[in-house]
Amino acid sequence: MIYLDHNATTAPHPEVIDAMMPFISSQQGNPTSNHSFGRRALTAIEDARDKVAEAVNAHPSQVIFTASGTESNNTIINGIARSYPNMHFAYSAIEHPCISKPIESIKKLGFKATKIPVTNMGLIDFTKLSKDELNSISFLSVMMANNETGVIQDMSKINRLAKDNDIILHTDAVQALGKINVDFDSLGVDAMTVSSHKIYGPQGVAALILNKKIDLYPHLLGGGQEKGLRSGTENIAAIIGFGKACELTQQNVVTFGEEVKFLQAKLENALIKMDAVIFGKESNRLSNTTFFSFKDIDGSTLLTALDRKGFAIASGSACSSNSSEPSHVLLAMNIADDQAKAALRVSLGVETKKEQIDDFIKALKQELERLKQLTAVAA
Amino acid sequence: MIYLDHNATTAPHPEVIDAMMPFISSQQGNPTSNHSFGRRALTAIEDARDKVAEAVNAHPSQVIFTASGTESNNTIINGIARSYPNMHFAYSAIEHPCISKPIESIKKLGFKATKIPVTNMGLIDFTKLSKDELNSISFLSVMMANNETGVIQDMSKINRLAKDNDIILHTDAVQALGKINVDFDSLGVDAMTVSSHKIYGPQGVAALILNKKIDLYPHLLGGGQEKGLRSGTENIAAIIGFGKACELTQQNVVTFGEEVKFLQAKLENALIKMDAVIFGKESNRLSNTTFFSFKDIDGSTLLTALDRKGFAIASGSACSSNSSEPSHVLLAMNIADDQAKAALRVSLGVETKKEQIDDFIKALKQELERLKQLTAVAA
Repeated sequence: MIYLDHNATTAPHPEVIDAMMPFISSQQGNPTSNHSFGRRALTAIEDARDKVAEAVNAHPSQVIFTASGTESNNTIINGIARSYPNMHFAYSAIEHPCISKPIESIKKLGFKATKIPVTNMGLIDFTKLSKDELNSISFLSVMMANNETGVIQDMSKINRLAKDNDIILHTDAVQALGKINVDFDSLGVDAMTVSSHKIYGPQGVAALILNKKIDLYPHLLGGGQEKGLRSGTENIAAIIGFGKACELTQQNVVTFGEEVKFLQAKLENALIKMDAVIFGKESNRLSNTTFFSFKDIDGSTLLTALDRKGFAIASGSACSSNSSEPSHVLLAMNIADDQAKAALRVSLGVETKKEQIDDFIKALKQELERLKQLTAVAA
Repeated sequence: MIYLDHNATTAPHPEVIDAMMPFISSQQGNPTSNHSFGRRALTAIEDARDKVAEAVNAHPSQVIFTASGTESNNTIINGIARSYPNMHFAYSAIEHPCISKPIESIKKLGFKATKIPVTNMGLIDFTKLSKDELNSISFLSVMMANNETGVIQDMSKINRLAKDNDIILHTDAVQALGKINVDFDSLGVDAMTVSSHKIYGPQGVAALILNKKIDLYPHLLGGGQEKGLRSGTENIAAIIGFGKACELTQQNVVTFGEEVKFLQAKLENALIKMDAVIFGKESNRLSNTTFFSFKDIDGSTLLTALDRKGFAIASGSACSSNSSEPSHVLLAMNIADDQAKAALRVSLGVETKKEQIDDFIKALKQELERLKQLTAVAA
């Protein structure tokens, strides 16, 4: 099987597994315990915190470990809502549901919420907002790079706008980290979400990077771990693995771009020859992500056929793959319903080989021909 | 080092690690993805769900995977508060802070909250409530077995009272599972929390067992995993490990009680000879937990001395070990401040050996003598 669904999840890197194993296979102790085991666990966690901080150019004290990107995003939304009354929350129309749903949920509690449209290139479009609306917004969340299209937002422009309008700015950088430069300090955002299992770290751990000027009400209350901001026994092995993955990410970030860019160009040239539409093509995009569809070809039929031939790709985002709804990202980009429903995503990994892309293109051509013939026969 | 702090955390059992490894060391795919990797991950998760359900005699559809006992407890409190207006939440005075803090937190949002006292034996004491107060309670959370004292509540009595008063009943069975019989169906509770890393499973995974008649508003919103009740990419390897640990727990439950009971008796006889007070001694207690203190001996000094000699034990609960506050559990049991502050906890594991307890008793005697002499010199 050839795995081309790295935006959904990545397998831990061998060095990550090596780093984690001692923390899985022997007695660790609870980091809040006052004995040698506990202190050793605590030291290891703080070492991992340093590595995560370094990978995103933040201070270790700004790193709050959580269990998932989803938890980080729910934490910032609900935490701000509990700390600051009368907030007006805004988010782009292409945010992951773990941003849009918590915001729509607190709307029912009386908070104002605004979904900001995007252009057909997938970029957030503030021109659709009135000046009064923009002035009233007090919190904004914009995904740094989109999980489906790979489109990268102009964060410096968004940051300027946020600063000019006194907006607390959050970015979901889950898909950006490890693929483009993610610099918390330079971005100027107040909060940022990053996740381990998208960057060859283990599942079950993520972080919320937080400007300490922000008063965050904790989403999980209890034993007071993470300086009271996120309670629950620390997932030690996973945190160690996340730290290691961040260390590797720093080393990979340059080469990833260049090598994968070549494979992406190869894939996309072939797709265009097969008359595919590539979504967000004219935008600045992640070099590992290609989201496309073929006219009159059912996406899920093609996905199943490719799976049988040994290629794992995605239809829309993994989170909504089990639903037959068209991608909300594509609808927001004003793509027609049938084209959005047919969309397929290839997301390359750092270990993806040229031969695998050659094989994929070959298989895709064959299946496409077969499906076209079937359609012709049926018609 | 001899580890006698199993109520804080346990190391994964070798069979648990074996079960997890394939899900750590190779590409898994996101369980919501529509390809072979995704389907295999989904199947493995459902298999683990069956095992967890079987261990607690619940239906698999009642098992909601979360990342920690803390998250399960926060989820039930906040989820009930969002779904049912005008709730009156009650909890025993010896609950873990991940129950008491979320309840005290929603109190600020206008919900009624009542902390119910316990007897000096550590059992919840409803006699302190007026009939009107009891009638007004609509949600109650009582820990099945206490993490500090090991005292086991009379759940059938509590359940009858809950049924008679139309109370939604939750029990935190984190410390009970694997030590005594935990049967969701027989207990008759509406919701129950169990956690993996207390039963020789990995950290980073737990469950909320939920009667589906309860309308639970999700604490984490997003991709809609766990049938919409808990969003976030599933922590596959950890879930598999939790499933395996539950399977092992079912096999261990009888032997654990008998073997460890013998060690506990040995330890406690020795402690009593040294003039220790054992908290909750007259109550039905977990056979692995002994919470005690010595008159005029500083607990943290003794803990540090024992740690240097190679024995890891706890002062109060791990979650509050870093604070110098006396245990809230002991204060609720009406134990004097200085005695509560001096408290130490030994919690045995399934692998604890008789020789280790002999060695511990010997070391404790020596250190106690040394500290008494020092105190005598100082005085």
